[in-house]
Amino acid sequence: MRRAFIPSTDLVPRVEKGEPFAVARMISRAEASSSEAREALGALYRKAGRAHVVGVTGVPGSGKSTLVATLVARLRAAGARVAVVAIDPSSPYSGGAILGDRIRMQEHALDEGVFIRSMATHGAMGGMAHACLDVVDILDVAGYDTVLIETVGVGQDEVEVANASDTTVVVSAPGLGDEVQAIKAGILEIADIHVVSKCDRPDSNRTLTDLKMMLKDAPPRDGWRPPVLGLSSLRGEGFEDLMDAMARHREALAGPGGVARRRAIAAFRLRKTAETILIERFRGREQGSVDALAARQQDPYAAASELVRNFTGEKADA
Amino acid sequence: MRRAFIPSTDLVPRVEKGEPFAVARMISRAEASSSEAREALGALYRKAGRAHVVGVTGVPGSGKSTLVATLVARLRAAGARVAVVAIDPSSPYSGGAILGDRIRMQEHALDEGVFIRSMATHGAMGGMAHACLDVVDILDVAGYDTVLIETVGVGQDEVEVANASDTTVVVSAPGLGDEVQAIKAGILEIADIHVVSKCDRPDSNRTLTDLKMMLKDAPPRDGWRPPVLGLSSLRGEGFEDLMDAMARHREALAGPGGVARRRAIAAFRLRKTAETILIERFRGREQGSVDALAARQQDPYAAASELVRNFTGEKADA
Repeated sequence: MRRAFIPSTDLVPRVEKGEPFAVARMISRAEASSSEAREALGALYRKAGRAHVVGVTGVPGSGKSTLVATLVARLRAAGARVAVVAIDPSSPYSGGAILGDRIRMQEHALDEGVFIRSMATHGAMGGMAHACLDVVDILDVAGYDTVLIETVGVGQDEVEVANASDTTVVVSAPGLGDEVQAIKAGILEIADIHVVSKCDRPDSNRTLTDLKMMLKDAPPRDGWRPPVLGLSSLRGEGFEDLMDAMARHREALAGPGGVARRRAIAAFRLRKTAETILIERFRGREQGSVDALAARQQDPYAAASELVRNFTGEKADA
Repeated sequence: MRRAFIPSTDLVPRVEKGEPFAVARMISRAEASSSEAREALGALYRKAGRAHVVGVTGVPGSGKSTLVATLVARLRAAGARVAVVAIDPSSPYSGGAILGDRIRMQEHALDEGVFIRSMATHGAMGGMAHACLDVVDILDVAGYDTVLIETVGVGQDEVEVANASDTTVVVSAPGLGDEVQAIKAGILEIADIHVVSKCDRPDSNRTLTDLKMMLKDAPPRDGWRPPVLGLSSLRGEGFEDLMDAMARHREALAGPGGVARRRAIAAFRLRKTAETILIERFRGREQGSVDALAARQQDPYAAASELVRNFTGEKADA
């Protein structure tokens, strides 16, 4: 028997009750950026804002996935319901996330107080960012106290989405190569909390010292001076400090610094959502004279300008 | 004395002569996505298509920058003029590329037959991809025989731009962690040539075997079966094989497989350029009621839909 389609707006009260089926269904529709789901997602946005949304980002090899797994266990042990939205780099062609939900954090698999979701980064330009934040809202409304957004700290969308959270944790690690360190420099400034992972390693003190030196003259972020914490997921050390810093930053954000931050996040979401809707409306109209272009008889600017003019109804010189 | 502004269209014949000043100026305008430069960039697109454009991508730590530096020296030694466009992950806020031109490949600094440019990945959504390909056209018209696009293999734009080249080289390395390997899986399928770097290491044979096993049943790409090559930048080994494979792939692309590839690249450029122009026209109109949004009294979908409707002149239910 074929199950009847449940309209997204009917799922909203069931998401509020935290029903796993409704949560999973709603998330799938948010990921697919289904236009049917937009009214419901809008309603969920207006109901959200209760959870502590924490972005965790770091370069590949920084140990951030292990750190997130341990952090989930610690928050859970402290009585919180915890959700993780992990943004995996994925193939632009096969469309599948690489690290499936099933192989991640298997120890939490049977715990209803923990929800893990891997999202692919494929799809429309910028679409990942707004879909991810919609998923965060769903989990927020479903009653998770802390929602962790785990992203790799490479790529503009990945960094922006980590930054669009209440608290951003940037993970560094000792012993990474020059190339990786250089990439890392690009994400240090979005940190509310700096974490050096793998502090069981002898070279971690050097990394801690270097990082503190590098941040010595950095201006406060929304009136908050980001602490630098050492952690060892292997030994389970430093997680109390991290949870404490997360709670303190959340409190600090309740002050005037938080207003600017929430406005910036709202502006970011508005822009990303509008751009996604705009590109979506445009889609299908971008099929121009590809053959003339491939033969270099026409150029992309002339061809693209014409397509955009046709779409917006502008005159040639408008 | 203030220098007079040189219109971009006047720079075109000087770019064709390979004048370094004109090339550098034109590249800056392409990077800035200056609308004044579009007619000139269109003309350069129509003149381009002579160079062999090779995308080189790999995860952080794969040794791709060292490989590119050695490859440049080898191509140069073989008599080719070589340009590199390196796409660095950059801070979304400070706007600067991390690895500046000055600290990269200093050995080539005084050689006029080598041109290196680092580009930041900041800016408009998707803007990096089309700006990068404009820069490639400029270098192509300026007379560089081979133009290498070096990107980190993480992030959709970064992967797509590497794929928008005549020949795509994907660099793997032995001894990277699980997280990095998983990311790598997402870029394997865009390879025309697979390279395992650091083949001076004892564990490289395992990586070569694993990679060959993984690719055993992969379908040919545009009628071409991607070879798997072992290289050592440290020992300078394997570069003849790589250059040979690059040349063979270029020849193969002159056949029927190449037609589909060139059409796909043209369609990609048209789409990216159109989306960039569209977002640019929209910019400034995306400032909605951020305060109501931040207070969660309004939602991003309703606010964004209204902005888009105002822009495209559509009716509410259109």
